[in-house]
Amino acid sequence: MKNFNYQNPTEIIFGNGRIKEIGELLEGRAKKVLLTYGKGSIKENGVFDIVTKSLKEHEIEYVEFSGIKPNPTLKKAQEGAELAKKEQVDGILSVGGGSVLDESKAIAIGACYDGDLWDFYSKKAVPKKSIPIYAILTVPATGSEMNPNGVITNEETKDKWGYRTPLNFPLFSILDPETTLSIPIKYTILAGLDIMTHAMEAYFSKEDNDSYILDRYVEALVKSVLESLDRLVKNPRDLGARENLMWTATLAWNGLNHCGVGKFIIVNHVMEHPLSATYDITHAAGLAALIPASMKYYLERYRTRLEQFGKNVFELSESEDLAERTITGFENLFKKYNVASNLTDAGIINPDTNKLADLTMKLLGKTDLITKEEIVSIYELAK
Amino acid sequence: MKNFNYQNPTEIIFGNGRIKEIGELLEGRAKKVLLTYGKGSIKENGVFDIVTKSLKEHEIEYVEFSGIKPNPTLKKAQEGAELAKKEQVDGILSVGGGSVLDESKAIAIGACYDGDLWDFYSKKAVPKKSIPIYAILTVPATGSEMNPNGVITNEETKDKWGYRTPLNFPLFSILDPETTLSIPIKYTILAGLDIMTHAMEAYFSKEDNDSYILDRYVEALVKSVLESLDRLVKNPRDLGARENLMWTATLAWNGLNHCGVGKFIIVNHVMEHPLSATYDITHAAGLAALIPASMKYYLERYRTRLEQFGKNVFELSESEDLAERTITGFENLFKKYNVASNLTDAGIINPDTNKLADLTMKLLGKTDLITKEEIVSIYELAK
Repeated sequence: MKNFNYQNPTEIIFGNGRIKEIGELLEGRAKKVLLTYGKGSIKENGVFDIVTKSLKEHEIEYVEFSGIKPNPTLKKAQEGAELAKKEQVDGILSVGGGSVLDESKAIAIGACYDGDLWDFYSKKAVPKKSIPIYAILTVPATGSEMNPNGVITNEETKDKWGYRTPLNFPLFSILDPETTLSIPIKYTILAGLDIMTHAMEAYFSKEDNDSYILDRYVEALVKSVLESLDRLVKNPRDLGARENLMWTATLAWNGLNHCGVGKFIIVNHVMEHPLSATYDITHAAGLAALIPASMKYYLERYRTRLEQFGKNVFELSESEDLAERTITGFENLFKKYNVASNLTDAGIINPDTNKLADLTMKLLGKTDLITKEEIVSIYELAK
Repeated sequence: MKNFNYQNPTEIIFGNGRIKEIGELLEGRAKKVLLTYGKGSIKENGVFDIVTKSLKEHEIEYVEFSGIKPNPTLKKAQEGAELAKKEQVDGILSVGGGSVLDESKAIAIGACYDGDLWDFYSKKAVPKKSIPIYAILTVPATGSEMNPNGVITNEETKDKWGYRTPLNFPLFSILDPETTLSIPIKYTILAGLDIMTHAMEAYFSKEDNDSYILDRYVEALVKSVLESLDRLVKNPRDLGARENLMWTATLAWNGLNHCGVGKFIIVNHVMEHPLSATYDITHAAGLAALIPASMKYYLERYRTRLEQFGKNVFELSESEDLAERTITGFENLFKKYNVASNLTDAGIINPDTNKLADLTMKLLGKTDLITKEEIVSIYELAK
């Protein structure tokens, strides 16, 4: 295992019906929050009413900031930061999925900075201060509820860049599985694939094959995702499966899955960001279109890892072509869930792979872990 | 899954050779620490020299407090607390295994309290303040390096009681696997069994069989322990296995293995404490002597759990008596490692099970989860 430091201060408040605790939880911490949310699904499913009722009961003022989209943008974050400054809020309360939370993280550091918010994402500046962030998660997928990461898109430059700062750990996140019951099965599947990919990125990046505690940990997460999706396809209102999927999502990207891996590239994620910034594709659909290609490209490098994964997760029998059958296993999995496993099937016909690779390299910055040529080859294989 | 709150602020600093960072890490945090350790093995294996050299280089003063024993005692903690007060230290630096750390936790809260330190353990008082705790872990087993728990023994009353307070989270813990290479294989095995038991206590306490993410997590931990022990029996200086075992120990008792389980009794642990407080037996040997008995007693209650565990961890084939074969699997495992799987073989001949059960009930306090009769029956089965 490689050296690592790990610390994660976010408090998780997990359980059905717990969103109504929000007012009590904020008491003594915040007097006036910026309540951020998306396109209004929290008004349809009742979450908004429960949250605002609890805030009022505990005399927490709130200013609404809504309309945050999937693939949240820099421009919107700048607007939010302006509003947060103007209203002098002392907390950001994010109610929604990972996009709302990532936008909220950008707002939180942007509101305490006089320069251009993009400075942080383009690594020109480091934030010194932030408004405290509190989250109510209603779509489990990105893991943003228990990590210091956020991704936003600069619409002008088409850059979809991530940033991490310890200031961006939510102070607490409420995970209330009941709020996820109304997520349509199509989006639940995509969320599941995103979670699975988070868990796997480090597994299929490891040069070191001797960190078996991490392998077992990742396999546990993926098995839990697959069991959850199997159950939810049959019954989207299966609360037990919703509970397990929600907690699995958090465990898949709170940092534990790559403790001890050393330097690694989250190859599917960094190649997906240019896709969803350029084309009209959701993040997880982009991931599914890339995963078989990246596995095929790195087949020999990760042969023993693919074999182990196929055996332990897909329960495949031993054979000489076990690694290849594991990749087929992924393609079959995506097919089973009606998700495209290449770019053409995903509706991205003959993309400019050179341009996409340039965007990926720009996102990665200086690295000796991957070359532009490798990235072009993977995009080509994914066509 | 049941409701839970989870928060764990301890920073983990993991990696070979990292103990020499201690001085730098303490800079700006502490000026003078109480350096707590055991019977001197850290002087034999070189850890003491590396640590004190680093402290001197960074001008951190230290006062030694040594001689802490396995099953650390109240009396020794009181002495340590007096010394910490007298010397006006602003940090406790625990260098050793779980016993040293648990004693250090008691010292940390004891030094900030004018009453009797036992008040906390007997639930008569709640600590308001603590001296910050920093840990260098040299024996992976108890998980104390990333949790707020500590267990000490009151030698007068024979009570071995645990206590948890958020004040007792170490601020950071250095996990340097190289320091564990010299642990004799006999103690490594016992440590492994302790780790395995930590992981399993919640698994075999669950009334709810539908938290499969937790099941997969626990199975991952136990598989990692078994792989580590298999390798270390062959080569105690197998650094890769030491690394995996060390991180597994932390993950097994940092709270994650029972998130969502609800109320539960760590039955093997609470029944073991009276054993090792009364008899000359190490904690893990006591656990091994109890585990088959508790499983036999709860055979019907946990039949499906035992079946699942046998299948997923021991890789047993399906059969009608799979649960029974899983219990035999544990007995065989202990036999393989020359660890007794009942009290008689462990040298505890015909113990007063009624008295032991009284001590257990006293430790548990008021509970509706288990009765004295059940506890007596398990002790009897363990004879």
